[in-house]
Amino acid sequence: MSSTKLTGATIAEHNSRDSCWVIVHGKAYDVTDFLNEHPGGSRIILRYAGKDATDAFDPVHPPDTLNIYLDPSKHLGYVDMETIQKEESDDPEKALIEHRIKQMPPLEACYNLMDFETVAREVMRKTSWAYYSSGADDEITMRENHSAFHKVWFRPRVLVDVESVDMSTTMLGTKVSIPFYVTATALGKLGHPEGEVVLTKAAYDHDVIHLDITERIVRHAEQRGCKAVFITVDAPQLGRREKDMRSKFSDVESDVQASGGSSVDRSQGAARAISSFIDPSLSWKDIPWFKSITKMPIILKGVQCVDDVLRAIDIGVDSVVISNHGGRQLDTTPSAIEILAEVAPILRARGLEGQIEIYIDGGIRRATDIIKALCLGAKGVGIGRPFLYAMSAYGAKGVSHAMQLLKDEMEMNMRLIGAACIKDLNPSLVDTRGLLSGHSGSVPVDSLSLRAYDSLQGPRFGDKSKL
Amino acid sequence: MSSTKLTGATIAEHNSRDSCWVIVHGKAYDVTDFLNEHPGGSRIILRYAGKDATDAFDPVHPPDTLNIYLDPSKHLGYVDMETIQKEESDDPEKALIEHRIKQMPPLEACYNLMDFETVAREVMRKTSWAYYSSGADDEITMRENHSAFHKVWFRPRVLVDVESVDMSTTMLGTKVSIPFYVTATALGKLGHPEGEVVLTKAAYDHDVIHLDITERIVRHAEQRGCKAVFITVDAPQLGRREKDMRSKFSDVESDVQASGGSSVDRSQGAARAISSFIDPSLSWKDIPWFKSITKMPIILKGVQCVDDVLRAIDIGVDSVVISNHGGRQLDTTPSAIEILAEVAPILRARGLEGQIEIYIDGGIRRATDIIKALCLGAKGVGIGRPFLYAMSAYGAKGVSHAMQLLKDEMEMNMRLIGAACIKDLNPSLVDTRGLLSGHSGSVPVDSLSLRAYDSLQGPRFGDKSKL
Amino acid sequence: MSSTKLTGATIAEHNSRDSCWVIVHGKAYDVTDFLNEHPGGSRIILRYAGKDATDAFDPVHPPDTLNIYLDPSKHLGYVDMETIQKEESDDPEKALIEHRIKQMPPLEACYNLMDFETVAREVMRKTSWAYYSSGADDEITMRENHSAFHKVWFRPRVLVDVESVDMSTTMLGTKVSIPFYVTATALGKLGHPEGEVVLTKAAYDHDVIHLDITERIVRHAEQRGCKAVFITVDAPQLGRREKDMRSKFSDVESDVQASGGSSVDRSQGAARAISSFIDPSLSWKDIPWFKSITKMPIILKGVQCVDDVLRAIDIGVDSVVISNHGGRQLDTTPSAIEILAEVAPILRARGLEGQIEIYIDGGIRRATDIIKALCLGAKGVGIGRPFLYAMSAYGAKGVSHAMQLLKDEMEMNMRLIGAACIKDLNPSLVDTRGLLSGHSGSVPVDSLSLRAYDSLQGPRFGDKSKL
Amino acid sequence: MSSTKLTGATIAEHNSRDSCWVIVHGKAYDVTDFLNEHPGGSRIILRYAGKDATDAFDPVHPPDTLNIYLDPSKHLGYVDMETIQKEESDDPEKALIEHRIKQMPPLEACYNLMDFETVAREVMRKTSWAYYSSGADDEITMRENHSAFHKVWFRPRVLVDVESVDMSTTMLGTKVSIPFYVTATALGKLGHPEGEVVLTKAAYDHDVIHLDITERIVRHAEQRGCKAVFITVDAPQLGRREKDMRSKFSDVESDVQASGGSSVDRSQGAARAISSFIDPSLSWKDIPWFKSITKMPIILKGVQCVDDVLRAIDIGVDSVVISNHGGRQLDTTPSAIEILAEVAPILRARGLEGQIEIYIDGGIRRATDIIKALCLGAKGVGIGRPFLYAMSAYGAKGVSHAMQLLKDEMEMNMRLIGAACIKDLNPSLVDTRGLLSGHSGSVPVDSLSLRAYDSLQGPRFGDKSKL
Repeated sequence: MSSTKLTGATIAEHNSRDSCWVIVHGKAYDVTDFLNEHPGGSRIILRYAGKDATDAFDPVHPPDTLNIYLDPSKHLGYVDMETIQKEESDDPEKALIEHRIKQMPPLEACYNLMDFETVAREVMRKTSWAYYSSGADDEITMRENHSAFHKVWFRPRVLVDVESVDMSTTMLGTKVSIPFYVTATALGKLGHPEGEVVLTKAAYDHDVIHLDITERIVRHAEQRGCKAVFITVDAPQLGRREKDMRSKFSDVESDVQASGGSSVDRSQGAARAISSFIDPSLSWKDIPWFKSITKMPIILKGVQCVDDVLRAIDIGVDSVVISNHGGRQLDTTPSAIEILAEVAPILRARGLEGQIEIYIDGGIRRATDIIKALCLGAKGVGIGRPFLYAMSAYGAKGVSHAMQLLKDEMEMNMRLIGAACIKDLNPSLVDTRGLLSGHSGSVPVDSLSLRAYDSLQGPRFGDKSKL
Repeated sequence: MSSTKLTGATIAEHNSRDSCWVIVHGKAYDVTDFLNEHPGGSRIILRYAGKDATDAFDPVHPPDTLNIYLDPSKHLGYVDMETIQKEESDDPEKALIEHRIKQMPPLEACYNLMDFETVAREVMRKTSWAYYSSGADDEITMRENHSAFHKVWFRPRVLVDVESVDMSTTMLGTKVSIPFYVTATALGKLGHPEGEVVLTKAAYDHDVIHLDITERIVRHAEQRGCKAVFITVDAPQLGRREKDMRSKFSDVESDVQASGGSSVDRSQGAARAISSFIDPSLSWKDIPWFKSITKMPIILKGVQCVDDVLRAIDIGVDSVVISNHGGRQLDTTPSAIEILAEVAPILRARGLEGQIEIYIDGGIRRATDIIKALCLGAKGVGIGRPFLYAMSAYGAKGVSHAMQLLKDEMEMNMRLIGAACIKDLNPSLVDTRGLLSGHSGSVPVDSLSLRAYDSLQGPRFGDKSKL
Repeated sequence: MSSTKLTGATIAEHNSRDSCWVIVHGKAYDVTDFLNEHPGGSRIILRYAGKDATDAFDPVHPPDTLNIYLDPSKHLGYVDMETIQKEESDDPEKALIEHRIKQMPPLEACYNLMDFETVAREVMRKTSWAYYSSGADDEITMRENHSAFHKVWFRPRVLVDVESVDMSTTMLGTKVSIPFYVTATALGKLGHPEGEVVLTKAAYDHDVIHLDITERIVRHAEQRGCKAVFITVDAPQLGRREKDMRSKFSDVESDVQASGGSSVDRSQGAARAISSFIDPSLSWKDIPWFKSITKMPIILKGVQCVDDVLRAIDIGVDSVVISNHGGRQLDTTPSAIEILAEVAPILRARGLEGQIEIYIDGGIRRATDIIKALCLGAKGVGIGRPFLYAMSAYGAKGVSHAMQLLKDEMEMNMRLIGAACIKDLNPSLVDTRGLLSGHSGSVPVDSLSLRAYDSLQGPRFGDKSKL
Repeated sequence: MSSTKLTGATIAEHNSRDSCWVIVHGKAYDVTDFLNEHPGGSRIILRYAGKDATDAFDPVHPPDTLNIYLDPSKHLGYVDMETIQKEESDDPEKALIEHRIKQMPPLEACYNLMDFETVAREVMRKTSWAYYSSGADDEITMRENHSAFHKVWFRPRVLVDVESVDMSTTMLGTKVSIPFYVTATALGKLGHPEGEVVLTKAAYDHDVIHLDITERIVRHAEQRGCKAVFITVDAPQLGRREKDMRSKFSDVESDVQASGGSSVDRSQGAARAISSFIDPSLSWKDIPWFKSITKMPIILKGVQCVDDVLRAIDIGVDSVVISNHGGRQLDTTPSAIEILAEVAPILRARGLEGQIEIYIDGGIRRATDIIKALCLGAKGVGIGRPFLYAMSAYGAKGVSHAMQLLKDEMEMNMRLIGAACIKDLNPSLVDTRGLLSGHSGSVPVDSLSLRAYDSLQGPRFGDKSKL
């Protein structure tokens, strides 16, 4: 690496596929040979050929990406940033977003977790929104994750003394104020400059656990105070999320056909750009090795059927998270709450319910959802996207407000169901028969007869333009 | 309290958070210290600081509220109302409502109970409408209350002599003309200046029972001629009704963010403003005390599962109302008609069906709904909101018309089902299997394929603009 | 009755509630005293006070109505029609309908029975359309009648020789070309000047049976060649059809409130105007009398449950029509096809299936519907509204075309299901399990999360305005 | 046939119903006597009377149609095409389509098989689109074919080594790269000038089987290298597809009524035009004959119930395709995946699962659909329409891209379900209980109460026009 600072003019000469240099955080890199290997496609890099790519690079890459993936010989050295010509921003989306942020509803106008999503959709960059909000294939599982909770109904008890309600519990031995944790999510910087740090802070303030992406850092995690090792088992390959892909595609210039079709360059969205950390050969036989290298509890995240829960108990895992990865991997897999409702009675029947702590994630938006999971046997639940949306829309205050809303809902709903503390939550308080009614994506409607039918009307006001 | 009348000018000086006086019904009150305790938030009071607050106070507070909750030292004495400067109304909603009232459909254009709701929504103040019409969380239970009746279907008998139909019955020993009663509702003055009195009068005219909010007045009720003691057991804490909260929020100036965020002042809607009468420690062990202080029948309102009905019988309660409080408390609790369909066969199997009178409320809009409840074993049903809407839209005449419509429907439908009197209504006349089909809030639709599908069209008229 | 002809001027003097004369078919009638007794309300009569009411009278009254219901003393005698001042038509609907008729799709553009309904809705008078198309209460049963057929699915057989298909069968001993009949309907003149006669002719041309309203004419029917006595048992009182009532209401001037409200005059729509032929005391004990006065087969129309079918067999009735009166009487009663699916196996189990001929009506629109009914044990099906719509839109040709479409569909679908003749249709060809899935009127949707969800989009065309 | 070339002027004289000549591929034909026999109706021919009909003839007729169906005496000989007056195209649809093709999304913007359908709908001729996309009657079965796959849900296994995934399998002994084949479809030239050839080539490139329409060519097929004899058994008569009929109808001038109605000429759409190859008398007794004339495996395409699968095994057929002909024949027949789920357990219970290869087709759009079919016991699946749409929109490249998308999805989804090769797919990986939830076409909604209900809203932005 040269010790003389490079000038903007020098960099600007390398602005093509033949010689492509980019600046990231004040350093220049030669990425010519890397163009075809870039998981996110070459086009997005070429857009910044000869220029400063920092703003585009940051949200979608871990800080040490270039050190790990780009050969040191391609690290060209520091750039005299004074010599870089400031480009006039021609980013129409930026202006639009700034306008919307001025019109944003006040934080107090958010009364539930869905409200943050409604706001975030309007004030986030389209590509960032697409990354967070997208699911696999037709997004049926992603939506089912939420709607499945509406198939579990309550059987509340009345005339129970609920003057004081205690929502605290423990998770893997750690005491928490309320039985949810902030689940690990990727690319937090798409939503907020500080990224996941915002979530960790809010979790700390609310006496809630935040679970980081830890699989890459097993050995170092223990010293850093991590509580447990999460092994994500539902992602041997990253799912295709078409909303994400489509948004990325339209973000780059649509000159695909003009380019002659010779260089097939499939942009795969932000999701695919982070897939290099995945090992598809991971299998049950690797679990003993994990157990051998750490004293931390082992948690398998992504278990999705009864058999695998039983196997996890058998192999001596401490905990499983029933999860379909937020509906982002395999479409038409069941929601975690449905699998839990199937698993828990089997464990009870076999006397295994104390052998393992079961968590679920996916689709949780209301304290009633948390209560349902706990009634069915979960030790706690993970919540991810809602906090990302709260963060993206309102920053740290938003996350804190979201957590407070959940706590308020939780206290009230425990009162209304007739439970004064977490251990009062049990299967007799819920009716899960609705889960047997299936989850049909949609049924054909009877177009001709629906159109012929003359729908009923209410009484009419004189001023018809009004009603 | 001073005996000299205060002047408007004096009051007007106390118009801030530091010193806040308001006038209610010609008397002045110092509410400075009360601002932070006000269940409805301080902002709504501050809007009337130094002014006459009577019009805003009346609809949402019982008459004796100030005497009960405000220390006598804060009662400042009578005001010379001649000295109060009449404010020009700058209430755009008032003008809009007056315009709509002129365009209102005639009362005769209301053919069913839903029609009153359609009209009331247009002619009520937004905040009043929101208070009446809102339910807990996602309002799934509130809507399910009504739609559950569509899951119970008839098995009518033909060739039964139904020339004369007798719909009269008794409720807790009192003879009534038709087996419904007007259920207790709060804040009737939001819909009509005279409030619940309108409902009581109409009930009297139609030989129907109106059941007042009685839990606060147990000891005095008996002398006043009350028939029974209602103990509301489904509201240890008032539910969150977001529609109500949202409407209240937008009613006050949206200067929340401008205020710096330092004083968090969560307005909670009209619902929360009446919550101080609730004792969350009420439990089964208190029932014997109630029984000891009165000879009136004891009715538990808000029972929601089989176990609690059995317990009520066991403890010697005279009657239960199966109710989820109109879907205003805990969301995704089942409808009363569903619980009744579960309870009744169990009572019959145990020979307990004569031990207790069971009522249900929630979602009743048609005489067929009443008939279904009675077929399933209810002694009668409670109806609340529809009469509030009828009252809000058309006053006393509206309530009377609504009751008459129900009576007309009831007589006709008893004929059509083949029942000449109330005791002819029995379980063999209904099919409840539909209740087992679940109550999914919604299922994910298959967007891509629905959009690709080219829906069937009927024949086209030459003038396409028309069809 | 005077033998001198009355003049228009004389009649015109009696144009008020105090003295109200009207002309019908060239004769004058004094209806002053009858005003308050008119089942359709006085207002509609007063509109024609002192005028010729023939055009309004004809479609909704049987020809001999005035002779039967109006005392001879009120028959004032013939009118010199030359002296009647022709009113300029101020009927905006008439002009609109004439315009639409010019734009009507050609008859060949109707490919199925729903298509006639789509056309008829546009070219009929609003009040006539409302009378034909309306159902009881929320019209749930009316619509369920049709959609229930979609719950019965086929199990077709292949490699059956279906070169020739024979659809003929017998009904109560009469040979017909196809197993449907034209069911009795009222007020055919609302749709066509000639009324039901059009249906009878088309039925004759197609070798199909038309079943007239016969209950009023039991004794005379036999001589007139009637095949059987239909006793309608599902209408001890005429149902309330709010669409019909509402349309009638808005048809008269909306001066209800202006009239001071003193004379409550509830217009009840066309349906109620024909209710005087109904005897609510008719019961099982009257059946032997019917059997004693005629040798014709007795058919009970409107049976709706297993018990009543068994009772009909027991009492020696020849046939029943399972029917809910087109969904026009009691709402949330099941469809005939659902009841048939419940009745037929019970009859087979008891060896009674040959004892009685079972017909069904309600909601049949496709030949597949007919095939399903026959597979389940019906001898034939009745079809009503579709032919009324075909008649109202296209007259006699329309009805004939509708019948031909059904025949074409029937022949094709019998081939496709693998049945060469009517007796090949049997229960093994259908799957009725779908009928157990309930018939929920609607389930609450999850508004907040549906709104927050960002639906999937397909690829975009450059010209976005197009897609 | 004359050896002198005819001139355009001579042909042009025969331009009426009395004498009607047309040119096809440079030869003239006298079709006067054939007009009334034309399955597609006479009108479409008369439009080209005296003119060159080649462009209209080609897409909807096999090349040898005229030789087979028109008597040699009507073959008038070659035409001097120089003498034909070129008509100015007055085809507004052609211009519109050309405009849309310019705006077409790039091929890379298609991320799944539905996307091709979305594009094809916009760039195909309306009549061609209608032929491809239409189904029988109300198109309920056609849509159910797709949505049925959403009723089968996965039970994925985790921690399976899926580093390498092998999707290859065999079909009737032939090795293929992935277990789907391109199913036989008619009239490929409606979508692309080269027609089915495009599909065959793409299939070859992707190591996939294309199955031609073979029933007409049994004896010659074997020499030509065909792998098996397909006998289509679900089409003893071609279904009515109203969308197709309607589109054809509006394509010809709507002068039907003007023509006096005397010559009923029912245009039946493209579907009916190809129906002459169908023998409705084909039955089980003919199967031995097929077996006697060929050594190729016999495949029955169109079996739709358990009984017929058992019968096929019994008679010694090698394979069945469970199919309802793409929902184009009999409406409300179940989807193939549902029948497969019923058939497979019965075969297993009787030890017959190795006796026959079962394929299914209809509604397959995702690799997850293929996986579900294989888990349930299918050897492979047929896919038809999606490739026609890909071809119609993007030609050969489109078909290839569509196949590649399926392969990419397949590899990923096998990983995510935890299967490393085809034989790992088994019934324990799927949950078919959803198939029991029925397939109701639609249920009546509760209009009045839905309209009265005030739906929940999220927080509002200041700029309301935006949200």
